[in-house]
Amino acid sequence: MPISVDLRLDPRWIVPIEPDGALEEHALLVDGGRIVALVPTAIAERDYVARERVVLPTHVLLPGLVNAHTHAAMTLLRGVADDISLKAWLEQHIWPIEARFLSPEFVHDGTLIAAGEMLLGGVTCCADQYFFPDAAARAYRQSGMRAFLGLPVLDFPTPYAADAEAYLQAGLAARDAWKHEARLAFALAPHAPYTVSDASWEKLVIYARQLDLPIQTHLQETRAELEQSLQTHAMSPLARLDRLGATGSNFIAVHAVHLLDSDIDLLATQGCQVVHCPTSNLKLASGLAPVSGLLSRGINVALGSDGAASNNRLDVFAEMRLASLVAKVAAGDAAALPATRALHMATLGGALALGLEQAIGSLRPGKQADAIGVNLASFQHLPCYDPRSHLVHVASRDQVSDVWIAGQRLVQGGVLTALDGADLAARARLWQDRLQSG
Amino acid sequence: MPISVDLRLDPRWIVPIEPDGALEEHALLVDGGRIVALVPTAIAERDYVARERVVLPTHVLLPGLVNAHTHAAMTLLRGVADDISLKAWLEQHIWPIEARFLSPEFVHDGTLIAAGEMLLGGVTCCADQYFFPDAAARAYRQSGMRAFLGLPVLDFPTPYAADAEAYLQAGLAARDAWKHEARLAFALAPHAPYTVSDASWEKLVIYARQLDLPIQTHLQETRAELEQSLQTHAMSPLARLDRLGATGSNFIAVHAVHLLDSDIDLLATQGCQVVHCPTSNLKLASGLAPVSGLLSRGINVALGSDGAASNNRLDVFAEMRLASLVAKVAAGDAAALPATRALHMATLGGALALGLEQAIGSLRPGKQADAIGVNLASFQHLPCYDPRSHLVHVASRDQVSDVWIAGQRLVQGGVLTALDGADLAARARLWQDRLQSG
Repeated sequence: MPISVDLRLDPRWIVPIEPDGALEEHALLVDGGRIVALVPTAIAERDYVARERVVLPTHVLLPGLVNAHTHAAMTLLRGVADDISLKAWLEQHIWPIEARFLSPEFVHDGTLIAAGEMLLGGVTCCADQYFFPDAAARAYRQSGMRAFLGLPVLDFPTPYAADAEAYLQAGLAARDAWKHEARLAFALAPHAPYTVSDASWEKLVIYARQLDLPIQTHLQETRAELEQSLQTHAMSPLARLDRLGATGSNFIAVHAVHLLDSDIDLLATQGCQVVHCPTSNLKLASGLAPVSGLLSRGINVALGSDGAASNNRLDVFAEMRLASLVAKVAAGDAAALPATRALHMATLGGALALGLEQAIGSLRPGKQADAIGVNLASFQHLPCYDPRSHLVHVASRDQVSDVWIAGQRLVQGGVLTALDGADLAARARLWQDRLQSG
Repeated sequence: MPISVDLRLDPRWIVPIEPDGALEEHALLVDGGRIVALVPTAIAERDYVARERVVLPTHVLLPGLVNAHTHAAMTLLRGVADDISLKAWLEQHIWPIEARFLSPEFVHDGTLIAAGEMLLGGVTCCADQYFFPDAAARAYRQSGMRAFLGLPVLDFPTPYAADAEAYLQAGLAARDAWKHEARLAFALAPHAPYTVSDASWEKLVIYARQLDLPIQTHLQETRAELEQSLQTHAMSPLARLDRLGATGSNFIAVHAVHLLDSDIDLLATQGCQVVHCPTSNLKLASGLAPVSGLLSRGINVALGSDGAASNNRLDVFAEMRLASLVAKVAAGDAAALPATRALHMATLGGALALGLEQAIGSLRPGKQADAIGVNLASFQHLPCYDPRSHLVHVASRDQVSDVWIAGQRLVQGGVLTALDGADLAARARLWQDRLQSG
């Protein structure tokens, strides 16, 4: 007797990531928000009856993309200060604006806009690291998007908190309020080694261990950060964090551009996670991360867009393409970081980095039904000799037609179903008016 | 009494390139295919009567983009061999396919698809360098697109010609047949210093001087090319071409990745043109061209997509963004190649490189009415503090809504008017079938 399921998807190709390949004549079956089976069409016909069936005749179906590092609310600062150095950008533009305008309302609205942008671009899960995580959590629940919320820790005051202890307590309170929400996960997110003291790191490492929370931090983004640490601490920032007990498989190093050989050894032996943000690293002239070298050492590398103030898109398609291009020139090898590897980084690599690989990152039965359809029908995407290569080197987020999270269709035919684009535009314009008149 | 004109365009912003800036409350007036005036809306109301008026309420209007280097017909090889080195890519994939399939029909169909893709992406003029330029010219006339056709010269045989003399004669015959076509221009396009002998260069330099034709060639794309020339000729490829009389303000060096200091001096003193192809240079791991250094020496630098077999999009928006990003990390300076400079390279820089700056490249009265509308309405492009920055760092070609060439509307609301997308897709599929069964 056929098995009854909620949903059957029949695309032109399925790229499940696990296993590698581009399947034709296959169907994905979903029930109760989870993937039930990925089988040849004939088997789907014979063994399953679906309440809803969606045919995607010219599309690739693949796991939802994971944006493993962003500051979602900073979409409100998109393009506010471009083409200047990281130091001037932070000190003369971003921090003064944040000091003046940061509020739960700012974070809610900015996060909602970011969630809408990411969903339309095929991103089903992001790791967000910003102030007022409670307000961000509200926005993510409204959007239907999956989020991994990094609870910020800093040693200097902002409108959100006064000192490291206050940040920790505010963050943990937000986590307590939202920890039963199925699509939210939490981590501690100390800003960086250079903005958080040893004492604060020691304290947050204890919390992380006791509460089983990952730690995500900006690490060795610029050469200056590495050099200052070598002068002040006589060791690299990573070595310092290792001494403070922060490293391990649930330690997520964002950027990791300027690494000593001993840092790479440490990342490998401790099984740390790395998030590569190629657009941000180029735009702020930080440098070229040694991604091929990290991958060849078996280190997991995920992809991140960083915030819209330093990118200025929250676009994992763009990051896949740029990661593949930059790795080739950085390694001097056109075979470095091929399309299949970039796709892995943007999906399962992201899930692994966030410790969510049991739930998302591939179209494996038992996992959450987070999947996206990418339409390659247009002549601009033809000929097509390998759809995996086209996903990285030809397509862009504008070809994403459909997005499901836990089986819920959040984008249909390129349109958001749970959010209203006109409302998001109005919120963006409102905040632009406030910032410009402020 | 008001002046009667064909067309009035009323966008939200106009970015004319000459002068720099983003004008609001301005209108562009067009008559007989040329720009008549760019004036404040009140002046347009008072002084002009237009037979057609197009309001673009959320759009930026800017000059059509110039793709200063491509091999248009190679769209039929899009994605046929990705993530491998230039040498293996050429010798094991591209050249064998070309030897087997190259024909006027191949070139016509591939060029037509490329023209459709470029028009939809806001490219109104391209410099194309490929075999059977007569077939390419037919495709460009059909498309309405402006093209600068490089007549190929090689010392080895292909299905197009047997030796350098035969290439030259075939190319010049194509030029004779099409030279009165208003939207076509011609150049000599010897493939590269390493594939064309001194004797052939000497001959083609004479033709170029006598017929007043520019010369476009691939130059110092890889380190190996530079090193081999230093060994074989005891000088760089550029120095060799200079000795052979090829350099000057109508010498267009494509790629120019690996340059000696003396090469940069030579480019500057001879007033040569450079075409930067950032995606292709990264994808083939060729290297990072010293673009900031060239610009600071006053050398004009245009942008090119290269062919779809090494990119795999003919997308000048992507090249603008990547050029800006790569220049920053190459120069170690986040202020390098700001958005306004990237826009200049993609428009007037391209026109200058091709010697067409009197006709196109900016929205200056007297020039051809080649203009594009880019719609920034969506919340994904908000907030918008500076539309010029958004054109480079936020928008993509998918936001191009309208394209005019010489006042003729070739894209309207994101749809081609003179070409049929379904027909182009059918041609692409036909050739894919042939290549895969061949």
